[in-house]
Amino acid sequence: MQGGKCLKSAWKLFKSSGEGAARHYSHTSTRGSFGLLFDIDGVLVRGQTPIPAAKRCFRKLVDRRGRYKVPVVFVTNAGNCMRQAKAEHLSHLLEVEVSPEQVMLSHSPLRMFTQFHQMCVLVSGQGPVQEVARMLGFQNVVTIDQVREGYPLLDIVDHDRRPKDSIPPTKGLRPIEAVILFGEPIRWETNLQLILDVLLTHGNLGSNWNGAPYPHLPLLACNMDLLWMAEAKNPRFGHGMFLVCLESLYKKVTGQDLKYEALIGKPSVVTYNYAELLVRRQAERLGWSLPVKTLYAIGDNPMADIYGANLYDRYLRTAPRSEARLPEACRSILVCTGVYSKEEALPSLSQQRVFHGHRDFRFEPDLTQPSYVVDDVQDAVELAFEQEGWSLH
Amino acid sequence: MQGGKCLKSAWKLFKSSGEGAARHYSHTSTRGSFGLLFDIDGVLVRGQTPIPAAKRCFRKLVDRRGRYKVPVVFVTNAGNCMRQAKAEHLSHLLEVEVSPEQVMLSHSPLRMFTQFHQMCVLVSGQGPVQEVARMLGFQNVVTIDQVREGYPLLDIVDHDRRPKDSIPPTKGLRPIEAVILFGEPIRWETNLQLILDVLLTHGNLGSNWNGAPYPHLPLLACNMDLLWMAEAKNPRFGHGMFLVCLESLYKKVTGQDLKYEALIGKPSVVTYNYAELLVRRQAERLGWSLPVKTLYAIGDNPMADIYGANLYDRYLRTAPRSEARLPEACRSILVCTGVYSKEEALPSLSQQRVFHGHRDFRFEPDLTQPSYVVDDVQDAVELAFEQEGWSLH
Repeated sequence: MQGGKCLKSAWKLFKSSGEGAARHYSHTSTRGSFGLLFDIDGVLVRGQTPIPAAKRCFRKLVDRRGRYKVPVVFVTNAGNCMRQAKAEHLSHLLEVEVSPEQVMLSHSPLRMFTQFHQMCVLVSGQGPVQEVARMLGFQNVVTIDQVREGYPLLDIVDHDRRPKDSIPPTKGLRPIEAVILFGEPIRWETNLQLILDVLLTHGNLGSNWNGAPYPHLPLLACNMDLLWMAEAKNPRFGHGMFLVCLESLYKKVTGQDLKYEALIGKPSVVTYNYAELLVRRQAERLGWSLPVKTLYAIGDNPMADIYGANLYDRYLRTAPRSEARLPEACRSILVCTGVYSKEEALPSLSQQRVFHGHRDFRFEPDLTQPSYVVDDVQDAVELAFEQEGWSLH
Repeated sequence: MQGGKCLKSAWKLFKSSGEGAARHYSHTSTRGSFGLLFDIDGVLVRGQTPIPAAKRCFRKLVDRRGRYKVPVVFVTNAGNCMRQAKAEHLSHLLEVEVSPEQVMLSHSPLRMFTQFHQMCVLVSGQGPVQEVARMLGFQNVVTIDQVREGYPLLDIVDHDRRPKDSIPPTKGLRPIEAVILFGEPIRWETNLQLILDVLLTHGNLGSNWNGAPYPHLPLLACNMDLLWMAEAKNPRFGHGMFLVCLESLYKKVTGQDLKYEALIGKPSVVTYNYAELLVRRQAERLGWSLPVKTLYAIGDNPMADIYGANLYDRYLRTAPRSEARLPEACRSILVCTGVYSKEEALPSLSQQRVFHGHRDFRFEPDLTQPSYVVDDVQDAVELAFEQEGWSLH
C-alpha cells in the first residue's frame, strides 16, 4: 500500500495548501463530469451499524430538495436480497432517499445474460433466491431445497436429516442445465454436496457420477468477496470462501479445475459496465447533457473495490473510440473503516502479499493500489469534489 | 486395480480347484493364527440397509453358543457416536452379539494422546461430541456452540442467526489450546469460520487475526474419509471433504499450509495399532495362547481400508524383532459392495488415478492395491478361512 499512502500524503498536503483551498469552492465549469460509486459494507455500515461519517457526507450530497448533486450508485457484492429492500435499508441508514435504480447488487448484471434465461437453472444462496432469479429474468428455477425433496438420499451429512426407517422414494426433477451461485448459502455441506452432484451427473441427478462430460455444466457465480467486515474485530466469511470450498472439492474429487462461465460482482468489469449504465441514467435524470467523464469508486476492500475500479479504469483507457459516451477514467479511493485499516491492518498477511482475490483473477499487485487512501467515506467524497473543482457545501 | 483383479482370478481358480477344496475343511493345525478387521459402511451396511451377505457370514462366524471362532474387530472411520451405540446397532443388524470392546471408531486412539487430555480443547463434529471427548479422557472441552454463545459476533453467515437490533455482549471463553475434529459437523460455514478464528487468534478469540504465530495451535483430526457409500447411487461426503475445505480456506487466507498434529482413523498406522490391541484382547478371551500371526482387513474403500491395511503390513514387516507379539502380516481384502464396485466403478476417475486420499498421505498406487478382490464380505471371510486352512462350517 506504499503507493497509496504516498498519494494520500500528497492529497493531505494539497488539501491544506492555498491552491487546494482555492479550487475547493470553484464549480460548474465542468458540470456533468463525474459520478460516485459507493461500496456499502465497510464504507457506509459495519454489520447493522452505520459508520458516522456516512450520514454526515450524504447530508451534503443532496440539495435542499433531497436531489443528489451528482450521480450516485451503490455497488455492493451483497446479493442475498432484492434491490428494493437494499434501497429502503440505505434510505433508513443514511437518512436520504435512495431509489432501487441507484442500487446494484452482485447479481444485477445477470439481467444481461439472456442466453440462460430459458434454461432450467439451479440456484444457490439464502433469502429470496427464487424471487431474485425470477426478477432477473430466469424462467425455470430449481432451488437446493427442491433438489433435496426430489432426491432425498443425496443430502445426508446431518444425521438428524437423514431418512430414518424407510427409504423415501426418489421423485426426480427435470434435468438441470446451469448452476447459478448468488451468494453464501446456509448449511454449506448441503449446497456443496448437491452442486457437486449436479455437476458430476451433468444435471441428471439419477445418473452415475462417471457419466458427466468435462467441462461441466455452465456455472455462474456472483460475489467473489473472500472476506468482509461486520461488527466483529476480524473479517468474516464472504461468498468467496464458499467458492474456494466448491473449487477445492471439485478438484479433489475429479482432479480437474472447476470452470466458471461467468464471475459477476466486483472486481469484474461486467459489474462496472453495469454500474456505469446506472450512473448514466442518473446523469440523464439530473438533466446533464454532457457525458460523465470520471467515476470515483469508494471502497474498503483492496481486492474487490480497488482491484475492480483499477481494472475498469484500464478497460476504459483501452476501450474503442466509438464508445464515446464511456467515462475516460475510474479512480479508486480506499477507506480505512472496513477490511483495510491502517492501525489494524493484517501486516503478517499483507507483508506476505497473500492473494485474497479469486483464483481466476491474476494477482497483479498494481491493481490493488488505490489512486487515493483516505480515512473514511466523508474524506473520500470531499476528495472527489475537490479533484473536480466542485463545492460540496 | 489390475493387480488386485489378477489376484482375484487366481483366488477363484484356487477356490474351484481340488487343492483348494482339500484345504477348505482342514483346520486346528494353526489355531490362534489370525483375526479379522471389518470395515462397516459399504461392507456390512449401506446407510441403514444391511448388506445380505453380512448377516449370512456372521451367522457362520460364531459357534452355537454365540462365541466368535476368531477375533473379530470392527474398525470404522465413523466417529460421531459412542462405541456402545455402534455395538448395539451392529448386534441388531448382524443378529449376533457385538460387544463395545470389539468396536473401534475413528477417534478411539485419542485415548492414548494423554498429553492433550488436560488442555482446553475445542471439539468439532455432530452428535454427542462433548460426551465422546470426555469418555476419551479430555477434561476441558469447549464446543462450537459454546464459542458461538461466548462470541456472538463471529458466526454470521446465516442472516437469520445474526444479532438483530442490538449488539449482544461478548461473554468470552477461556483460551483454547488445541482443536479436535471428530467428524463432519452440521453447518460447515459455522465450524469453518470459528475454527479458523481459533487458529488465527491462537485460541484467544478476542485478539486480532494477525497476532497468531505459525505453526498454529495443535490440530488433531479423526476420520479423513473423503467419500463413503450410503443408499444413494453415488458416493456421499465424508469428513475428508470437510478437511479439504478447512485446509483450502486456511491456505487461501494465510498463504500457509494447515498442519495436523495427528491424523487418526484409517489409513493411519496408529489406528491399526489400536485395532491390533483389540484383536489381541479378543484372542486372550478366546483362550488363545499363541499370538495372532495374520490380520485380514476387509473393506470397500481403496484409499482408507486397503491403503491402511497395506501401510500397516509394511509397518509390521519393518517392526523391531523385540515386538514379538505383533502379527507378521496384514492382508487387505477389497469388497465390491461399497465405494469400489466392478460394474459401477468410476472409470473416468480411476483411469486418471485421482488421489482420493488425504493430502498428508503420499499417493502410492501400490498401497491401494488389495491383496484380494472379492464380491462381498461373505467371500472375504471364506477367503480368509481358506487361506488359514480353517473351516467356517
